[in-house]
Amino acid sequence: MAVRAAVAGASGYAGGELLRLLLAHPEIEIGALTGNSNAGQRLGALQPHLLPLADRVLQETTAEVLAGHDVVFLALPHGQSAAVAEQLGPDVLVVDMGADFRLKDAADWEKFYGSAHAGTWPYGLPELPGARAALEGSKRIAVPGCYPTAVSLALFPAYAADLAEHEAVIVAASGTSGAGKAPKPHLLGSEVMGSMSPYGVGGGHRHTPEMMQNLGAVAGEPVTVSFTPTLAPMPRGILATCTAKAKPGVTAESVRAAYEKAFADEPFVHLLPEGQWPATASVQGSNAVHVQVALDEAAHRIIAISAIDNLTKGTAGGAVQSMNLALGLDETTGLSTIGVAP
Amino acid sequence: MAVRAAVAGASGYAGGELLRLLLAHPEIEIGALTGNSNAGQRLGALQPHLLPLADRVLQETTAEVLAGHDVVFLALPHGQSAAVAEQLGPDVLVVDMGADFRLKDAADWEKFYGSAHAGTWPYGLPELPGARAALEGSKRIAVPGCYPTAVSLALFPAYAADLAEHEAVIVAASGTSGAGKAPKPHLLGSEVMGSMSPYGVGGGHRHTPEMMQNLGAVAGEPVTVSFTPTLAPMPRGILATCTAKAKPGVTAESVRAAYEKAFADEPFVHLLPEGQWPATASVQGSNAVHVQVALDEAAHRIIAISAIDNLTKGTAGGAVQSMNLALGLDETTGLSTIGVAP
Amino acid sequence: MAVRAAVAGASGYAGGELLRLLLAHPEIEIGALTGNSNAGQRLGALQPHLLPLADRVLQETTAEVLAGHDVVFLALPHGQSAAVAEQLGPDVLVVDMGADFRLKDAADWEKFYGSAHAGTWPYGLPELPGARAALEGSKRIAVPGCYPTAVSLALFPAYAADLAEHEAVIVAASGTSGAGKAPKPHLLGSEVMGSMSPYGVGGGHRHTPEMMQNLGAVAGEPVTVSFTPTLAPMPRGILATCTAKAKPGVTAESVRAAYEKAFADEPFVHLLPEGQWPATASVQGSNAVHVQVALDEAAHRIIAISAIDNLTKGTAGGAVQSMNLALGLDETTGLSTIGVAP
Amino acid sequence: MAVRAAVAGASGYAGGELLRLLLAHPEIEIGALTGNSNAGQRLGALQPHLLPLADRVLQETTAEVLAGHDVVFLALPHGQSAAVAEQLGPDVLVVDMGADFRLKDAADWEKFYGSAHAGTWPYGLPELPGARAALEGSKRIAVPGCYPTAVSLALFPAYAADLAEHEAVIVAASGTSGAGKAPKPHLLGSEVMGSMSPYGVGGGHRHTPEMMQNLGAVAGEPVTVSFTPTLAPMPRGILATCTAKAKPGVTAESVRAAYEKAFADEPFVHLLPEGQWPATASVQGSNAVHVQVALDEAAHRIIAISAIDNLTKGTAGGAVQSMNLALGLDETTGLSTIGVAP
Repeated sequence: MAVRAAVAGASGYAGGELLRLLLAHPEIEIGALTGNSNAGQRLGALQPHLLPLADRVLQETTAEVLAGHDVVFLALPHGQSAAVAEQLGPDVLVVDMGADFRLKDAADWEKFYGSAHAGTWPYGLPELPGARAALEGSKRIAVPGCYPTAVSLALFPAYAADLAEHEAVIVAASGTSGAGKAPKPHLLGSEVMGSMSPYGVGGGHRHTPEMMQNLGAVAGEPVTVSFTPTLAPMPRGILATCTAKAKPGVTAESVRAAYEKAFADEPFVHLLPEGQWPATASVQGSNAVHVQVALDEAAHRIIAISAIDNLTKGTAGGAVQSMNLALGLDETTGLSTIGVAP
Repeated sequence: MAVRAAVAGASGYAGGELLRLLLAHPEIEIGALTGNSNAGQRLGALQPHLLPLADRVLQETTAEVLAGHDVVFLALPHGQSAAVAEQLGPDVLVVDMGADFRLKDAADWEKFYGSAHAGTWPYGLPELPGARAALEGSKRIAVPGCYPTAVSLALFPAYAADLAEHEAVIVAASGTSGAGKAPKPHLLGSEVMGSMSPYGVGGGHRHTPEMMQNLGAVAGEPVTVSFTPTLAPMPRGILATCTAKAKPGVTAESVRAAYEKAFADEPFVHLLPEGQWPATASVQGSNAVHVQVALDEAAHRIIAISAIDNLTKGTAGGAVQSMNLALGLDETTGLSTIGVAP
Repeated sequence: MAVRAAVAGASGYAGGELLRLLLAHPEIEIGALTGNSNAGQRLGALQPHLLPLADRVLQETTAEVLAGHDVVFLALPHGQSAAVAEQLGPDVLVVDMGADFRLKDAADWEKFYGSAHAGTWPYGLPELPGARAALEGSKRIAVPGCYPTAVSLALFPAYAADLAEHEAVIVAASGTSGAGKAPKPHLLGSEVMGSMSPYGVGGGHRHTPEMMQNLGAVAGEPVTVSFTPTLAPMPRGILATCTAKAKPGVTAESVRAAYEKAFADEPFVHLLPEGQWPATASVQGSNAVHVQVALDEAAHRIIAISAIDNLTKGTAGGAVQSMNLALGLDETTGLSTIGVAP
Repeated sequence: MAVRAAVAGASGYAGGELLRLLLAHPEIEIGALTGNSNAGQRLGALQPHLLPLADRVLQETTAEVLAGHDVVFLALPHGQSAAVAEQLGPDVLVVDMGADFRLKDAADWEKFYGSAHAGTWPYGLPELPGARAALEGSKRIAVPGCYPTAVSLALFPAYAADLAEHEAVIVAASGTSGAGKAPKPHLLGSEVMGSMSPYGVGGGHRHTPEMMQNLGAVAGEPVTVSFTPTLAPMPRGILATCTAKAKPGVTAESVRAAYEKAFADEPFVHLLPEGQWPATASVQGSNAVHVQVALDEAAHRIIAISAIDNLTKGTAGGAVQSMNLALGLDETTGLSTIGVAP
């Protein structure tokens, strides 16, 4: 019997990608679709690439509309998930694709998001140590941010193996879909094509405490993160260049061994052969994570670089992967490691 | 029992897209993969997006390597398919993704391709009148060119309903993957990003006689085609703007009715609602064809515009669709109408 | 003594390009800069590429602010120029970069723009027969639309030499800056990168009557135009593919001779050597027009293709060129035929 | 009397950009143009954007052809400049746009370039402390690498004011023109559009020792550099994100003051107002450098980010700027701080 899933926020990029994946998921039946300003519109006008759902009409995001589903995905603006989740009852699997339930530290939440902390749910990055157990059978899932997904997967093996100093320096490039579908002047095609630009520089990006939470948990003590995101002229993809000073005595061999071990049984995270570096195009539309790592001998720094699709593994694919675990399905059901390239 | 398929020319864009689709095809088992200059290399180095095949090694394109498969796909340079096909025997399904067996008129072939005509195989555009019957059970398939796919599907309803004069004017924009993976200066990213440029202007493009063959067959008498292809700064996609003078008395309603009728039962060709126009991003990675049509009252011309993914419906998806028919499978097996957007 | 120029609408793409050109113009001193919703802001925040003007502050668009200049450029939304122009007095050179004064036929204006016709000013496309004389010394200039610039320059030699039938079929691709800087969902980078899409199909684009006006004037009788614009994934540039049935007896030689004659003395319009086709990247930031023409023997159609920068020759460069004529300066002052490529 | 300049290597991207700038330089007369594999071809076929030079024909790169000029620019592959320069005589100003004469340390040269060290010429980055004096009147100039230009200008103020620890971590994104015009598969438009990818990771990029040389000279003792370059889907531009641990006691105010002081009199380097961050589009085609700096309080790191056009300030514009100094001209002659945007 199919699992019925509702999607709140079906008109945005995260919602659209989620629907793309759910359409290919053998156990899911797509139920209610909601959108706020777009309620009443055909999905075909908003997401013309989702042809099988073209005649679906978006409803208002209310508890009544979302009731009666086995799974409810929330692709809502930050701060709106808690109110909806409360009304859904404890037996419904609620998958929050927003930030509301990611952070454990209320002070971090309040500092970076400026509102009261709603709580903490099991964190939907199964590859992190201990994460799978918390997700299996859970009725609540906090889907990670796109940058923390890329960064945590690139760096955690170094901290798990105690190879790196606890100060990470990270520069990541993201496709524009990460900035959402609400039209803003700096996101116009005329502005972004042919241009690279940073934003949230100097520690202000909201994903910074999430990275510190993930890496600190693996390291067993705090890890400082200097994070600079940049906007790249492409619709999708994150390339995260993550570096940390290597501890004394660390060698290229020990680094590679740590990464091979960390990813050995992972279905989605792939350590590339030596000499081959990730490219975001290779993971476009895929739930795969391509990682490569090197030791810069002269600077004695570990350089770990990951490529993900920010909408797939970085958002909707990660959500489906964790949903699978929560529902007791095979973790890879409905997901692919095959990119759409070129 | 799975159908075993070999792919000759697995290192190029057409071969890569075909493998992406075959990996998702429930009835296919991927057998030998060949490549000429790349024989001996890991596929992971050449097609890093095809993670499940990363450790496969390309072999030489020989009859021995290709023997023992149920289906052999030929993604070879023009003129090389006949020699290979001859050695494969009449019981093997041979799907030629090159141009060699598309044209019926030997003089056309010789004029546009400059070599001896190899013959004509059933033409793999099932949506054309009469095409499905010829493909069902066939052991030979000529996959159409990408432009003729986009153009023929956009215009044939107008000719089938006798709405248009027999002079079509077509301008199409293609993504750069249509020009292949062999590095040439004008295909460098530095050259194509930010630039639109035409090529093969004035009737010289090799796909012109193929369009005339298709449209003429539907019209019952010759259709002249003025075709101008342009290179667009995107990796994938074809947008074909196809116009023809409307016959006297033709109205917007009669045009729309003809298109609705032509596509009513087609699983992949979708006439958009009035007022919505195709965009190539909506069909990226999909086998769908988005079509819209209008009557320009002042100029009394029919304007039919189609969007396809040149590598999917325009090449590899079309090949799989026709293969399905030839094998007696459901025509849509392993294919999707869902695009990867944005 | 410098000519003082004011720019009304300095925060948009047309205004920004105009300022870029005026900064390099040896006879111009840049005076008041205005913007409506952006009045009070530093230009550096709105046009960060115009470093020498970064500390200029935008003023309101009022007659008082614009008074006291020798030239006033109006880069305003359609329909707003007449009210401003009236207040500027007959001795000020007013250059309207909007559509308000382009069309001669009031009925055309009302049909396509939906408001009362404001009048007709000398048309700022000096290359058209007779246009220069009307511009020299004029105090009013209507700058042409970007598409009509590209199309008229590509096709008028064919009509001037009576080589073409009076039904033109035109498909043009434009960079996104042609759609302006006001943020709209379909203009987001996420939407336009990787995508080609048409708009205004079927005769509805407002530039259609302007093309008909220009070509009809050259031909001496009406020319029907079927015009399809498409949006291309690039910030700048127009590639216009313009075709018309050749009259009986027309040859490739007679076509080429007509184009060579038409452009022989033009400083900005360049007929490329045979076999070389225009690319928009080659004219980026330049006032040059690259044109090539061919006769499709089989279809007996003339195919004339032009590439311009929509913001330079298509808007602000054309405005400066005409201003030069009106001021009695050399037509090329401050303008370049050198593109920024790659 | 005009200064006559020859350009060896006029068919590549660096040569093309140099010619674009020299065409606008009021003191320069363009003399011989050479190219190796392209000798005998019209420049119009190779650099179609340089319309005024379209009919120039490339000659072989020989001492005879280059003789008789006041300035000779060498835009040759690494390792070829010394042999040419030797034949030109001590009175000719030779501007080497390759790497041959940039490094002072012969061991560094041999390690990174694999050949014998040719020597060291005055380094063409006038903004570095002491650099202008060495360039004035010089007959030899080593034009810096594009990445070292962007990185050194972003970071040297921090080292000049003793604000930063001597370990810099740098991640930079470059447009594809930085990789040159020789066609290679990974530089195809199909590969780079929609993709970000790193290369030369782990300390291997040849520009690393050049950065260390520049920053170490300013700091007065060695500075370790961890440098990761990435290829971005755009033709031009470098965005360099440069970080270093701040020394104890450093504040946001002291950082900003240091940068304001360092750039106060620089004609091309512009510290953006607080809160505004660089974008490569803003400097496209311009010799300007946009810089912004922040102190990440939590990580206590200085984050300095610069945007340049890799072909202009990063190569050909930097060459012209230094040439101006060597010739005794105003440093800004023929150069602009105005970008071509959008």
